[in-house]
Amino acid sequence: MKTNILNHTYEEYMDMLKSFHGYAAPGLIIGGFMVDKAVRNLPSGILYDAFCETRSCLPDAIQLLTPCTIGNGWLKIIDFNRYALSLYDKQTYAGVRVFVDAEKIKAWPEIKSWFFKLKSSKEQDQTNLIQNIREAGAGLLSMHPVRIQPEFAMKKHKGKIEVCPQCREPYPVADGDIFCLACQEKHLYYSK
Amino acid sequence: MKTNILNHTYEEYMDMLKSFHGYAAPGLIIGGFMVDKAVRNLPSGILYDAFCETRSCLPDAIQLLTPCTIGNGWLKIIDFNRYALSLYDKQTYAGVRVFVDAEKIKAWPEIKSWFFKLKSSKEQDQTNLIQNIREAGAGLLSMHPVRIQPEFAMKKHKGKIEVCPQCREPYPVADGDIFCLACQEKHLYYSK
Repeated sequence: MKTNILNHTYEEYMDMLKSFHGYAAPGLIIGGFMVDKAVRNLPSGILYDAFCETRSCLPDAIQLLTPCTIGNGWLKIIDFNRYALSLYDKQTYAGVRVFVDAEKIKAWPEIKSWFFKLKSSKEQDQTNLIQNIREAGAGLLSMHPVRIQPEFAMKKHKGKIEVCPQCREPYPVADGDIFCLACQEKHLYYSK
Repeated sequence: MKTNILNHTYEEYMDMLKSFHGYAAPGLIIGGFMVDKAVRNLPSGILYDAFCETRSCLPDAIQLLTPCTIGNGWLKIIDFNRYALSLYDKQTYAGVRVFVDAEKIKAWPEIKSWFFKLKSSKEQDQTNLIQNIREAGAGLLSMHPVRIQPEFAMKKHKGKIEVCPQCREPYPVADGDIFCLACQEKHLYYSK
């Protein structure tokens, strides 16, 4: 079976997943089809940003297959826990959103039982699941046009950087007149 | 000048940055030295997770140089806007935190003026800046032991998945009895 994910063969994409993500997670195989579908439905030649609506797996498909990464800011995550992504024009914020369609997944019982966690991972036949995902491909997905809200899409600038008088580390003053965000509120670790 | 970033030559790391992040951002060159320092100071052979205290640049150094990515959940971001990362044992949550030291950076005026945004990007001599960062290397950094708070370090399980009656997409019921998070609160895009 010939399956391509953008300009990669299926096998190449599997190798990319293993190298970056650690293993070819089923969600990332679906994720490959999602990115492929979204990119093919954007006007060619535009510069685009990405929104991902979950932290689980899907951000890695976007990071591997598009120029958008968390660190360069072209990929943003808004953690709605929906398996969905949007790619959209950097200038106009118009683009497409691709999601796993709960109706379409019904045609694939093995995929449905995995996606909705109806079986334990021990009961799941992983080989069959992955083969089903490859066969289903974009058939699990739906798409619609979107225009991302400017408040989510706009790049935020950090502004002036100073040293926090409490932790003595640099921070953007816009985060607080007195202390950095970490010293204001959250305690990530016990000891410094 | 011989500079290594873990098992990569400096030039190899520059190529990895260009390929993944789009360009060899100065912050990611520092990020390479930060990951290198943290990894070398962990007990060898342990499995570790990562916390990154900024969304800017640094997560990409972690994703490129360690097994930890956003999508596999081994890298988490807590957006304190501090240029700092922690690598810690998956079991005990004990590890090390590496940060850009506001005192040490004073010895490098070109780096300081970039990091604290004292010059516009036009005024900045990019070649000189990058050369300085390479020379300074781990000399810009400090480190201390940490034990990550369990509430931040523990893996969260999504639990039961159902279809949201509003958007008709799958979501974890733990997010809300009635609607998914997206339908409850936030409006990422205009049209569906």
